[in-house]
Amino acid sequence: MPVEVARRLRGAAQDAGLDAIVCLSPENVAYVLGLVVPSQPLMRWRHAAYVLTADGRDAVVCVDMELTTLRGARPDLEIRPWAEFGGSAMAVLAQLLADLGLAEARVGVELGFLSVADHAELTRALPAAAFTGIDTLLARTRQVKTPAEIEVLTRLSRIADQAIATAVSAVGPGSSEMDLAAALTRSVYEQGAEQFKLMIVATGERSELPNVGPTERTLKPGDVCRIEIFPVINGYHAGVCRTAVVGDAPPMAAQIYANLVECKHLLLQTMQPGVPARTVYERFRSKFDELGMPSIAFVGHGIGVDLHEEPYLGPFSDATLEPGMVLGVEPLVYRTGHGFGMQLKDMVLIDPAGCTLLSDVTVTDDLLRVGA
Amino acid sequence: MPVEVARRLRGAAQDAGLDAIVCLSPENVAYVLGLVVPSQPLMRWRHAAYVLTADGRDAVVCVDMELTTLRGARPDLEIRPWAEFGGSAMAVLAQLLADLGLAEARVGVELGFLSVADHAELTRALPAAAFTGIDTLLARTRQVKTPAEIEVLTRLSRIADQAIATAVSAVGPGSSEMDLAAALTRSVYEQGAEQFKLMIVATGERSELPNVGPTERTLKPGDVCRIEIFPVINGYHAGVCRTAVVGDAPPMAAQIYANLVECKHLLLQTMQPGVPARTVYERFRSKFDELGMPSIAFVGHGIGVDLHEEPYLGPFSDATLEPGMVLGVEPLVYRTGHGFGMQLKDMVLIDPAGCTLLSDVTVTDDLLRVGA
Repeated sequence: MPVEVARRLRGAAQDAGLDAIVCLSPENVAYVLGLVVPSQPLMRWRHAAYVLTADGRDAVVCVDMELTTLRGARPDLEIRPWAEFGGSAMAVLAQLLADLGLAEARVGVELGFLSVADHAELTRALPAAAFTGIDTLLARTRQVKTPAEIEVLTRLSRIADQAIATAVSAVGPGSSEMDLAAALTRSVYEQGAEQFKLMIVATGERSELPNVGPTERTLKPGDVCRIEIFPVINGYHAGVCRTAVVGDAPPMAAQIYANLVECKHLLLQTMQPGVPARTVYERFRSKFDELGMPSIAFVGHGIGVDLHEEPYLGPFSDATLEPGMVLGVEPLVYRTGHGFGMQLKDMVLIDPAGCTLLSDVTVTDDLLRVGA
Repeated sequence: MPVEVARRLRGAAQDAGLDAIVCLSPENVAYVLGLVVPSQPLMRWRHAAYVLTADGRDAVVCVDMELTTLRGARPDLEIRPWAEFGGSAMAVLAQLLADLGLAEARVGVELGFLSVADHAELTRALPAAAFTGIDTLLARTRQVKTPAEIEVLTRLSRIADQAIATAVSAVGPGSSEMDLAAALTRSVYEQGAEQFKLMIVATGERSELPNVGPTERTLKPGDVCRIEIFPVINGYHAGVCRTAVVGDAPPMAAQIYANLVECKHLLLQTMQPGVPARTVYERFRSKFDELGMPSIAFVGHGIGVDLHEEPYLGPFSDATLEPGMVLGVEPLVYRTGHGFGMQLKDMVLIDPAGCTLLSDVTVTDDLLRVGA
């Protein structure tokens, strides 16, 4: 039960002059509810909503089939089910808002998520309510993690790092990308993740492609392998990416990888409270340019209930690092000009003293070797 | 390249008096594009759009980082990238529509998906265009699968069925739900699935919960295990669910399972072209009642680029079965009153002669046994 999240959101609602906040997207419902409503991210018409009033009340709307699961997980909450067939999530939400005395209130909703059709139904049902966008408010609040969020992100970071190390050592020349994927997912579940997202298994010439999963491609000596996975617990993600080679590294691979490692250490030295996110990017970029590496649009991003969140470490960012921020940092080059791509993604927590590497299982700065 | 899908959608657009259709949701973009834009379903601000004009032109909008992947997969298409940082997907889409001569046209969009904020930007940019909802048009078109869709759904059905059989035989008493999950996912990838969704591993008392993933719970004799998985290829899903027991089945389990099997065969006999979906449900329901089983809201649903699609086999459905429809049918009982739940989900194709079971690997009607 994310008491601290609710406390922070209530404060943000009060600061924004809102009487209530309604979280509607799967990620923001998970953020404030403390768990994922199982089918919500899978079928987007299976709406759920979390209503949090500025004066301290909380209630949830969910589809009827998830009522048992939610009541079991959050017996403390008022839960209003809507009937998947013949019912309407927006009608039940509108009634809940009315029952909470919010029919003429200022209610924050995610206008970057709420569909035109659902918004029309909601405003028809509550014509005197003033619905305003809270997408930025939510993104800002989510930037700084609570202690409970840091705990789960630390656990996830280690799961991802360990899973890649395990999978890389479990395969060899002649194994397929599918074998690598199977070893990776087995390890992720065995370590207690509930699921995972965006598994990238890109080997050989495929290592140049940004976001691709495993294929039947067979590993052969000289292959460069980019492997990334985001295990998930309670809707939270951590992403770790490692690059490994099969047998002898191809020409330039060792040098390019050493450049990525150098940049990783530069980032860890630079990231600390009070440093603008843009400055982190600029220092990285300056080093990357000096090493002759091709530019990338950003070198890191917040992460939590979304794969990417604010703040980005990029030239356009206006954020300043604060204790409690958790970021994925990822020096990478998709196209080295040598027929392969390389990437090194780690999870980092900003703490009062500077920063801490959360993905600290594979501590070596050497290029990983498949089957080793 | 889904030529037949584009042909059907163009016909539907013409019938509806639309000049163009814009697919925006990850599932409908995958449907008409023939592949998933990798990061679109993962980060919902990574917008992609597929524009299909009634007079035969096609173009795609995608985030800049996916340009290489899309160009490689669909070199035949015009692709307009938008810059993730500093750019706007809606601005690029509006410009594309204008360039296609659609600035004052009747353009179908998914109003059940398009957010209030994006809609506002789009209509500001193209104030003379008439944007109308095509959610129902798309759902109806997607009900009847093309030969290429049937091929991938058949493959996926067998992958899911085989994976569950493999996983159930790979574990035993003392194994955890995580072990079961690991064996399941390994098999799914080894058989060539790109990913999977909604893995349900619910054993013992947890078998009563609808949509839950694996935990550290250890299997013990007498446990009933509900196992379901949806492998995914090119955005298409097939769902298969099997129930297995550890050691001797608990009291009533064999009888309840036999009831589910009886209903499965009744469904296979009933499902054929021309039969109303509601009739299928009513015959099932009548048998289910006669067997003393608790009611369920629907007993099957279409499946394809979404986990659930039209038509539903339920009391509220107004659809009639047609050749080419592919449905998941799932007699189930979450709460038997005996501390366990049971489910049997299969994939079925409606064909001119009746129907065909696509999940035809585990052909036994006996209750599966863990470790056997």
